[in-house]
Amino acid sequence: MAGENSDSIPRGEAALLARMLPHLRPGPEVEVGPGDDAAVVRLPSPRLVVTTDTLVEGHDFLGHATTARWIGCKAAVQNLADVAAMGAVPLALVVAISAPAGTPATVFEELTIGLTARTEAEGASLVGGDLGRAEHLTVTVTAMGSLPLDQEPVRRSGALPGDVLAIGAPRLGRSAAGLALVLGERALVRPGADGRPTVMLRGIQDPSAARLVQWHDAPDPDLSLGWTVGRNARAMMDLSDGLVRDGRRLAAASQVTLDLDGAALAPDVEQLSGLAAELGADPWSWVLHGGEEHAMLATFAPGGVPAGFRPIGQVRAPSGHGPEVLLDGAPIEGAGFDHFG
Amino acid sequence: MAGENSDSIPRGEAALLARMLPHLRPGPEVEVGPGDDAAVVRLPSPRLVVTTDTLVEGHDFLGHATTARWIGCKAAVQNLADVAAMGAVPLALVVAISAPAGTPATVFEELTIGLTARTEAEGASLVGGDLGRAEHLTVTVTAMGSLPLDQEPVRRSGALPGDVLAIGAPRLGRSAAGLALVLGERALVRPGADGRPTVMLRGIQDPSAARLVQWHDAPDPDLSLGWTVGRNARAMMDLSDGLVRDGRRLAAASQVTLDLDGAALAPDVEQLSGLAAELGADPWSWVLHGGEEHAMLATFAPGGVPAGFRPIGQVRAPSGHGPEVLLDGAPIEGAGFDHFG
Repeated sequence: MAGENSDSIPRGEAALLARMLPHLRPGPEVEVGPGDDAAVVRLPSPRLVVTTDTLVEGHDFLGHATTARWIGCKAAVQNLADVAAMGAVPLALVVAISAPAGTPATVFEELTIGLTARTEAEGASLVGGDLGRAEHLTVTVTAMGSLPLDQEPVRRSGALPGDVLAIGAPRLGRSAAGLALVLGERALVRPGADGRPTVMLRGIQDPSAARLVQWHDAPDPDLSLGWTVGRNARAMMDLSDGLVRDGRRLAAASQVTLDLDGAALAPDVEQLSGLAAELGADPWSWVLHGGEEHAMLATFAPGGVPAGFRPIGQVRAPSGHGPEVLLDGAPIEGAGFDHFG
Repeated sequence: MAGENSDSIPRGEAALLARMLPHLRPGPEVEVGPGDDAAVVRLPSPRLVVTTDTLVEGHDFLGHATTARWIGCKAAVQNLADVAAMGAVPLALVVAISAPAGTPATVFEELTIGLTARTEAEGASLVGGDLGRAEHLTVTVTAMGSLPLDQEPVRRSGALPGDVLAIGAPRLGRSAAGLALVLGERALVRPGADGRPTVMLRGIQDPSAARLVQWHDAPDPDLSLGWTVGRNARAMMDLSDGLVRDGRRLAAASQVTLDLDGAALAPDVEQLSGLAAELGADPWSWVLHGGEEHAMLATFAPGGVPAGFRPIGQVRAPSGHGPEVLLDGAPIEGAGFDHFG
């Protein structure tokens, strides 16, 4: 129980909301926004698409290696990507934020700025949320979208032998490279004077390093590929746990084998080879196993790969080993990220 | 990065999901359930109602004073209640669970049992989720429902002077009384052999004590009052932070004063007076300030209080002090619960 005047304490829930709510610009489809028991949103169709995902400090991000604004961006992106990967347009997000006692109000405000900026960039709105206490900053976003009644969701299970495997990103491995800089204690991130995050590097020559840290902290894939040309994919998912691990999920759901094309991925590896040499890391591991890219991974009928996607492999009938992911026909070591592995 | 065979490790995500997913019984409106990037649910109307809420171990519950099954029930109830409080029928839930390394698989399974049991009791389905790591068990539920296009949401702002204030519960203060038993270290809760939670009490004579602990851990209000007779309320909200604090929110939103009727609340106090005497507590404080009841608090036009609700006060025009909550015309001390107070 709080004291009678706790609403007037600057650290109270009401004061935090007063810092956060002005950053929300709900679209015309939002009938009831924050402040009531629930939000009310008019969808274009009654076919709701919904997904949820959590970021926890110390597990999904490190406080010294990102900023609240980027955490907000990433929490939005990873959820918007899941909606997009069904071929659906995202429309609304809600967020539950739990934070330790003494968390500055700026953190809540910057989280909101990151969340709303990334959400509105896709035409969606942040429509509600919940604030609570925890030992570590925890941000759970739920993203909702809709599908027209005459459009089937794009599932993981639709890939057919003969399809082309394609990725909706000009390159892969950036998030893993940024993570390697963070885990190698080569990068610190601080909010700048204008609120824009600044990456500080230690003992790194590669000129792309700061951008790689940013990509890890706030990945910026083209999500609209999911609900535009991606809706014609045979199978689709977003790349969250690595090409090989996620590929295995798609392969298992579709009962196919994915054969990655080394030549198609070589340019991705090449662009990271300088930094990898500096860190003593294997750039192929970043490209094959790096998670948190959130690009669209899809299969298309032969000859049907649309602009924005690039071919990175072939879909084949499974061999006697069952569905698997191969690289130029050979098995791959490593399995990507498992929270409970 | 996890090892190549981590999917075969019993503690892996896939193994946990294998314990959880069999408890889900998605309704016919669920086109795509768990296992893809997002769930797809066909709503009766495109008017989506959505809310989110988090329970964190050590803040919102204590591990020794509840069980995973009851945590699942409570996480469902507090979100379903927010949908109901808009006058809307809940249809689908998603859940994000973060847990420490070494959390037994039983915890995930029991959470799922509690979540699905409470959700399905309202005719809704658990349709998807997310698993991750955290230092403390954290459960974030997002509940979604829909409103018919010709039915307005019941907001907090619609109360009018002359309305009757009513509560959709036979009594109040049970959750606070249960919390007092827990915080006074008079109650421990353990899962029984059949999975049913068992309350163990220490030095307490009151025969209702175990039921009060259960009500605190897994409150069981009649939520259907929200979308049945409650849809005719002028204003409505669910009681989550206490009658006085939540009442002040409704009063502020509607620009009215709520005058609670002491005689109407006296039976609630009386039923808790024996236990309060044992604990040296004030039963009026439990009834006026106790949170986590999740019953529907509503105002109705004079003479319009429907069955299931009981009158507990009057709505008046605000005095010079502005909107407030009074008891028999007099100010009330204390303000209920504020996470950041």
